[in-house]
Amino acid sequence: MQRVMVIMAGGSGQRFWPLSRERHPKQLLRLADPDRSMLEQAIDRAAGLVGPDRVFVVTGRHLVEPIRAAGTVLSPAQILGEPCRRNTAGCLVYAAAAIQTALGAAADDIVLGVLTADHRILDPAAFQATLAAAMGAAEAQDALVTIGIEPTRPETGYGYIEAGAPVTGGGPGVLAVRRFHEKPNAEAAARYLAQGGFYWNSGMFFWRLSVFLDEFAQAAPPYAQACREIAAALACGDPAAADAAFAALPDRSIDYALMEKARRVLVVPGHFAWDDMGSWDALERSLPADERGNVAMGAPVLIDCDGCIVVNGPGAAGMAVAVVGVRNLVVVVSPDGVLVVPKAQAQRVKEAVDALRQRGSAQL
Amino acid sequence: MQRVMVIMAGGSGQRFWPLSRERHPKQLLRLADPDRSMLEQAIDRAAGLVGPDRVFVVTGRHLVEPIRAAGTVLSPAQILGEPCRRNTAGCLVYAAAAIQTALGAAADDIVLGVLTADHRILDPAAFQATLAAAMGAAEAQDALVTIGIEPTRPETGYGYIEAGAPVTGGGPGVLAVRRFHEKPNAEAAARYLAQGGFYWNSGMFFWRLSVFLDEFAQAAPPYAQACREIAAALACGDPAAADAAFAALPDRSIDYALMEKARRVLVVPGHFAWDDMGSWDALERSLPADERGNVAMGAPVLIDCDGCIVVNGPGAAGMAVAVVGVRNLVVVVSPDGVLVVPKAQAQRVKEAVDALRQRGSAQL
Repeated sequence: MQRVMVIMAGGSGQRFWPLSRERHPKQLLRLADPDRSMLEQAIDRAAGLVGPDRVFVVTGRHLVEPIRAAGTVLSPAQILGEPCRRNTAGCLVYAAAAIQTALGAAADDIVLGVLTADHRILDPAAFQATLAAAMGAAEAQDALVTIGIEPTRPETGYGYIEAGAPVTGGGPGVLAVRRFHEKPNAEAAARYLAQGGFYWNSGMFFWRLSVFLDEFAQAAPPYAQACREIAAALACGDPAAADAAFAALPDRSIDYALMEKARRVLVVPGHFAWDDMGSWDALERSLPADERGNVAMGAPVLIDCDGCIVVNGPGAAGMAVAVVGVRNLVVVVSPDGVLVVPKAQAQRVKEAVDALRQRGSAQL
Repeated sequence: MQRVMVIMAGGSGQRFWPLSRERHPKQLLRLADPDRSMLEQAIDRAAGLVGPDRVFVVTGRHLVEPIRAAGTVLSPAQILGEPCRRNTAGCLVYAAAAIQTALGAAADDIVLGVLTADHRILDPAAFQATLAAAMGAAEAQDALVTIGIEPTRPETGYGYIEAGAPVTGGGPGVLAVRRFHEKPNAEAAARYLAQGGFYWNSGMFFWRLSVFLDEFAQAAPPYAQACREIAAALACGDPAAADAAFAALPDRSIDYALMEKARRVLVVPGHFAWDDMGSWDALERSLPADERGNVAMGAPVLIDCDGCIVVNGPGAAGMAVAVVGVRNLVVVVSPDGVLVVPKAQAQRVKEAVDALRQRGSAQL
């Protein structure tokens, strides 16, 4: 069985504007670690499980060059470029086809682990152990395997996985999945936390390619067919045909297109600190705070502030940033722009990016 | 009688940081008028009364070159540089000595009007009429003459002038001054407004040099003496002696050192819209607001904001500024820095500047 890891790194660079840009998305930012980008950290984590030559990154085609230029331990061929955006279902079908072609192995002989580039993992040993258990389960079982994160707060920003009974022969800690739940309201999130047996849907998956294709053939046949077409087109050197087959796919998440409909899904609970770094407010959970709960990068001046996230980004070192007398505010400065938004509304950076796009702004 | 206008333009560039800088103070900013700096506007106003060749600007010596370089209708000799900062009392003594020397006239033959460079005047005709009345009163009366602004709100940020009876032969609208009041609390400010007869102390003055020196000889003799010493030193080409005499003066405002103690002070009420542009919140009174009360310069993106003042300053055009979901906040961006502070605390920019100074910041 050939073990492979895929890192999804297709972010559009909106959520961490103005530090992230369309051609410099968040996975290339050194957000929580001043020495390594989030993508470099993800590659290291994946390589720890399968070795660096079995790690693939799948990203937008326009980001292949920026990622290669940023420098990784991977060879250029290990950076796969999707021709267009077709959400995570499309992304993973493309990755499956490209990797099968690259390895020249049978689908039943390849087991694939999927990570994303925007996760923050604070306990690498526990993380590696969980991944190894999930990969083992994917090898041994005819099932799609997910990693569910033990919740530490009633988070409403993630989907949840409701676990069932332990799986016979699935290895220690491998549970059946009873149901996927979409992002809950505050009341439901509190209930999930109190009740137990609910895990955050981490977006980390493990499957044999044969199981992946079989389940897609049941749940959404066009995906299984597209996967075969893309693999065939790539194998006979016809990338345009591969692109066309890919472009015909709908825009669906892997959860919606496959996981929620698949016949057999397992979950391996992960007991490590995890954050998906979804928007600026995630920095608060990743960086040390001062005595008034402020988190800062790039040495801004904070006077009489509480609970703020203030970033004077790399390249903006020629600017002095001063924030005075405010509460729970996000202030981010880069050479390209300035964002000011309440911490509780950090997701609204998308509205700002949309407005700038409508203006034809050059700062995206 | 020779009529002369002096414009005090010694600002330290703190209040409007990060647009204003130590060598680019607010009087050189185009804050409320995109075409002319505040100093240019003040010079035009003064020249309207006495002609451009009788207007002097007095500023810090380090600002003489920046002001000349910014270009004015004045000759280089009309820009006077104080050797150090000695507050408004020192400034006006220096100006009196330098102007008397420049004109070579007797102190009783020079009548001097004093404006400042950071005023925003919205009704030029009413302003000119008031200035003409004040200058006429200063020529005709042995008194120091001030301009008091008719209050339009219970402002606690200004000192007040309590007026008495009309002055016989003082011209229409010239009143005796009963008392100067320091910046009041909210209750007192409301009472002043309701009661009437109280005017904002505008910092605009008119006097014959002989009266100015006589009153100083009574109220604070060292100032009168310093004025004579500086004039004598300048007249015999000994600027070092002039500087030494000036440096020996204490740091006092003209209100404290002279006006509050003078024997005869008159006030001419001004009925024009006036703002002293003291800090960023003044922009709100000078620029048109959108339907949610936001005031903006430099086309920032505002989404769901109320009552904000957002400035994307000149030179920062390469940056996109987006402010989302906040209330009553000041956000100012320049190539040198970013300031975020609640509108009601706009004066705290000084704390930010102080903190940056302690760090040895190059952005001041």
